[in-house]
Amino acid sequence: MSHTTKPKTDLEIALESPMQHITTIAEKAGIPEDALELYGKYKAKIDTTQLNHLTADAKVVLVTAINPTAAGEGKSTVTVGLSDALNQLNERVMVALREPSLGPVMGVKGGATGGGYAQVLPMDDINLHFTGDLHAITTANNALAAFIDNHIHRGNELNIDPRRIIWKRVLDMNDRSLRHVMVGLGGPAQGVPREDGFDITVASEIMAIFCLAKDYQDLKKRLSKIVIGYTYDKEPVFVKDLAVEGALTLLLKDAFKPNLVQTIEGTPAIIHGGPFANIAHGCNSIQATHTARKLADIVVTEAGFGADLGAEKFMDIKSVQGDLHPDAVVIVATVRALKMHGGMDKKSLQQENVGALTIGIQNLEKHIQTVREFGIEPVVALNRFITDTEAELQTVIAWCEAQGVEVALTNVWEQGGAGGLELAKKVLEVLNRPNQFSPLYDVKDSIEQKVTTIVQRVYGGKGVQFTDQAKKQMKEIEKYGWDQLGICMAKTQYSLTDQPNLLGRPTDFTVTIREIIPKLGAKFLVCLTGDVMTMPGLPKEPAALRMDIDEQGRPVGLF
Amino acid sequence: MSHTTKPKTDLEIALESPMQHITTIAEKAGIPEDALELYGKYKAKIDTTQLNHLTADAKVVLVTAINPTAAGEGKSTVTVGLSDALNQLNERVMVALREPSLGPVMGVKGGATGGGYAQVLPMDDINLHFTGDLHAITTANNALAAFIDNHIHRGNELNIDPRRIIWKRVLDMNDRSLRHVMVGLGGPAQGVPREDGFDITVASEIMAIFCLAKDYQDLKKRLSKIVIGYTYDKEPVFVKDLAVEGALTLLLKDAFKPNLVQTIEGTPAIIHGGPFANIAHGCNSIQATHTARKLADIVVTEAGFGADLGAEKFMDIKSVQGDLHPDAVVIVATVRALKMHGGMDKKSLQQENVGALTIGIQNLEKHIQTVREFGIEPVVALNRFITDTEAELQTVIAWCEAQGVEVALTNVWEQGGAGGLELAKKVLEVLNRPNQFSPLYDVKDSIEQKVTTIVQRVYGGKGVQFTDQAKKQMKEIEKYGWDQLGICMAKTQYSLTDQPNLLGRPTDFTVTIREIIPKLGAKFLVCLTGDVMTMPGLPKEPAALRMDIDEQGRPVGLF
Repeated sequence: MSHTTKPKTDLEIALESPMQHITTIAEKAGIPEDALELYGKYKAKIDTTQLNHLTADAKVVLVTAINPTAAGEGKSTVTVGLSDALNQLNERVMVALREPSLGPVMGVKGGATGGGYAQVLPMDDINLHFTGDLHAITTANNALAAFIDNHIHRGNELNIDPRRIIWKRVLDMNDRSLRHVMVGLGGPAQGVPREDGFDITVASEIMAIFCLAKDYQDLKKRLSKIVIGYTYDKEPVFVKDLAVEGALTLLLKDAFKPNLVQTIEGTPAIIHGGPFANIAHGCNSIQATHTARKLADIVVTEAGFGADLGAEKFMDIKSVQGDLHPDAVVIVATVRALKMHGGMDKKSLQQENVGALTIGIQNLEKHIQTVREFGIEPVVALNRFITDTEAELQTVIAWCEAQGVEVALTNVWEQGGAGGLELAKKVLEVLNRPNQFSPLYDVKDSIEQKVTTIVQRVYGGKGVQFTDQAKKQMKEIEKYGWDQLGICMAKTQYSLTDQPNLLGRPTDFTVTIREIIPKLGAKFLVCLTGDVMTMPGLPKEPAALRMDIDEQGRPVGLF
Repeated sequence: MSHTTKPKTDLEIALESPMQHITTIAEKAGIPEDALELYGKYKAKIDTTQLNHLTADAKVVLVTAINPTAAGEGKSTVTVGLSDALNQLNERVMVALREPSLGPVMGVKGGATGGGYAQVLPMDDINLHFTGDLHAITTANNALAAFIDNHIHRGNELNIDPRRIIWKRVLDMNDRSLRHVMVGLGGPAQGVPREDGFDITVASEIMAIFCLAKDYQDLKKRLSKIVIGYTYDKEPVFVKDLAVEGALTLLLKDAFKPNLVQTIEGTPAIIHGGPFANIAHGCNSIQATHTARKLADIVVTEAGFGADLGAEKFMDIKSVQGDLHPDAVVIVATVRALKMHGGMDKKSLQQENVGALTIGIQNLEKHIQTVREFGIEPVVALNRFITDTEAELQTVIAWCEAQGVEVALTNVWEQGGAGGLELAKKVLEVLNRPNQFSPLYDVKDSIEQKVTTIVQRVYGGKGVQFTDQAKKQMKEIEKYGWDQLGICMAKTQYSLTDQPNLLGRPTDFTVTIREIIPKLGAKFLVCLTGDVMTMPGLPKEPAALRMDIDEQGRPVGLF
């Protein structure tokens, strides 16, 4: 990959790429026109009730990664490129992705829609408001908060202790000033003063529920089970006690339908739901994956961050709740990130350093082991960057071959599907073999047992310790009979441990659980380690400063 | 109007009413298919750049009302019914309405989409998230708030005084607990602590700007002029100082396109923008009105609350900024509200009381005078309710005839357009006469002069007094050269005065201006009187408690 001129931006490439009308894409995917609700010419929601007669039996390819750098390793790009490659090989394929959050879009990161010639379109719409799903989730979340405070203000029949409300408000925004707030100030007519805070929308339990619910009735039932806080007698208070699960479901009615779009190469793509991969499970909706599985023979999907976070949760939470499992797992690795895991400074990653690479490759080694723990043989996608040297690339390839693990070089950013053909062929081979998938734990195990399993078998650590607070919470959770749920670890994405600066492959470490938060609607217990950010902040120079529209109303400066 | 069984709800009537595909409605309205962006089968956004060759020359009928009761007098219902009646009379007519806010929908009030057989469809979608316009405005508003707090947190190059920030956050929610908050708590990494508050989205200056901007460039220019607060040296800080007007415009890009829907009788309707009629100007967008004026021969539109608020602002703000004016004005009155203005208790309004009615009719008399002040001859629509007696109805009609003012009985809730034919015919007569429309003041007049004109000629009061704070603000506004803008009065809708309980037609009163808030983007100065609510609260039993979806995913209990 070489450029004599300035390379095009993702937005420029996206705007230059011709799109097919979404009805054409739907026809190709086998979606009856009646089941489509168009949102402009290039987006549509799918009325899944019209696909009830189909069986969700496509094979599932899960794309995950090593522990990433802050810039990401191109996992979404590889996911899109792999789908396009499979499409080029005449497979009936669909790609299923998460919806981007506006917070990071306005802040610092690139979009969640892939990059270069491996993007989903229309990328500008998808990265901005798309079909409004996140706004509907924000609204439902904040309606619930308003109902809670209104209940207390209006006499507090349920005896809710304002100091023990755990339901937070949300915005789809990076806004650190809202992390800790006091609400209800200003006197008796303005509500009851209490400490509160805002999370980013993708951290809302409603987002997790939205992504795990099978249908409207399941959605409503899960919403009714949310614990919003505790009474003065320390008894849990549920959404059903407030009797607003119907209203919340109504607010999510349209958002709950999966969204159909296309890749640059015209591969049908479903983009739906996008929970955080730390505080939540980091996978697109079960609705989306099921719909894609009904329509295609192969569904390529991804999970957030590295295999220690997103992939673990895909297999232990989404697969278990959604009655599905991956048939192949792709681990995206980059020379750049492996060198960082080998001790190189972030600023010098552009320099060749086979020594650092050879050390850092242990991080990849652990993730390969992790995928094998689940009974699946992984394929490594070595995602090429412009600064990679031939010696470095060959080092990784030779190492993989020596380990007996399939590896393929990908160059989908520059070449689209053509840059992922080798990977696609290797994935097809794996799909043809039987696999022995099994989740790592049984939800009936004790909390300590489940967490220990994840720490030892996924992170490669020695064991777990719980803070006094976490121990107390564990007892309460057991008392209420909520312990037989999945575990959703909230951990830094940068390290296999709970310390963001411990790169490579640390061993002999202990993970500390600081807090356990029951998410009964999502059917998991969030185990917080270290400092987990649930409301990001903006950088000194937010991406927004570059954004604009031109005279024709087209977007400018969006990545 | 009589019912032997329980009358159908607005939602039941709406769901039973067959809709035409929105492309059929567009064809009828003369909108080229290329200019449509479908949102499902029954909603579409209109790309107005494809209508540039058309002239906005339709006549405008403005529907306003007497000072309303809390339940409203059916102004939207009459607006829709009148359009359907004109449609039945084979006029090329479109109706232009405001978008409902979700806050009141979840709280207490009926929808803003009309009622009975005079509704716009799909009423459930329109009352819930519609095409996401309000969410886009919420997002732009809160992105700006995040940029401000981030700027201060990151070194505060602009020297912004956190105690003098006037830009508030918003939610499209009735949430009293957010009226007064402290943000930025939790230590140095969590922003800078300061007092803040949330308004409801429709109170955002961005909503007002959105509704007054002519095109994207005007939108961006107006956004750049918003005053977000003041420096430690008390100098104003503008959005352009933060350089985020491009990003805010980008966030509003799609929302800015007007939305096309239909009435139950298939009359094309444009619903776009919905600013509060107290803190803002209470009219749908200029974009929407212009688009409708390009397509139809007659546009029927409305303005919030009574003629003292919405209609005054329609004629002094929207008309002046949008280069348009009403050709006819309909004043909606009800026997029920007139009896309340005559001193009857709210609870006994169902009883016949010609005496109270005869006294209360003075409220109508003032609004008739007000419309005449603008050089237009009004038509009174006496909107019939089931409890009205023949004697009461005849009293109003006879009074109007004695005053030489056109009056028509409407029964559009029950009969749709057929119930508004008499009104439609009288409106057509007025449209055929020339009118001498003129706004009441020149923006070049002094602030005191402009406010005094409104108080005397619209409210019928004696004069104005300014609090010390308002006087100080007035001086500052003059110092900065911002005084030559429109006046947007923020006043109770229930009374002609600034006291909500002074009903009927008070005389000899003074209005107190407590505060003057410059809205440079909207090009008006908000003059606050009394206690003006910019963030409503929920009632003890929110409407949300009745809401649900059924097995087929259809809405239940939405009005």
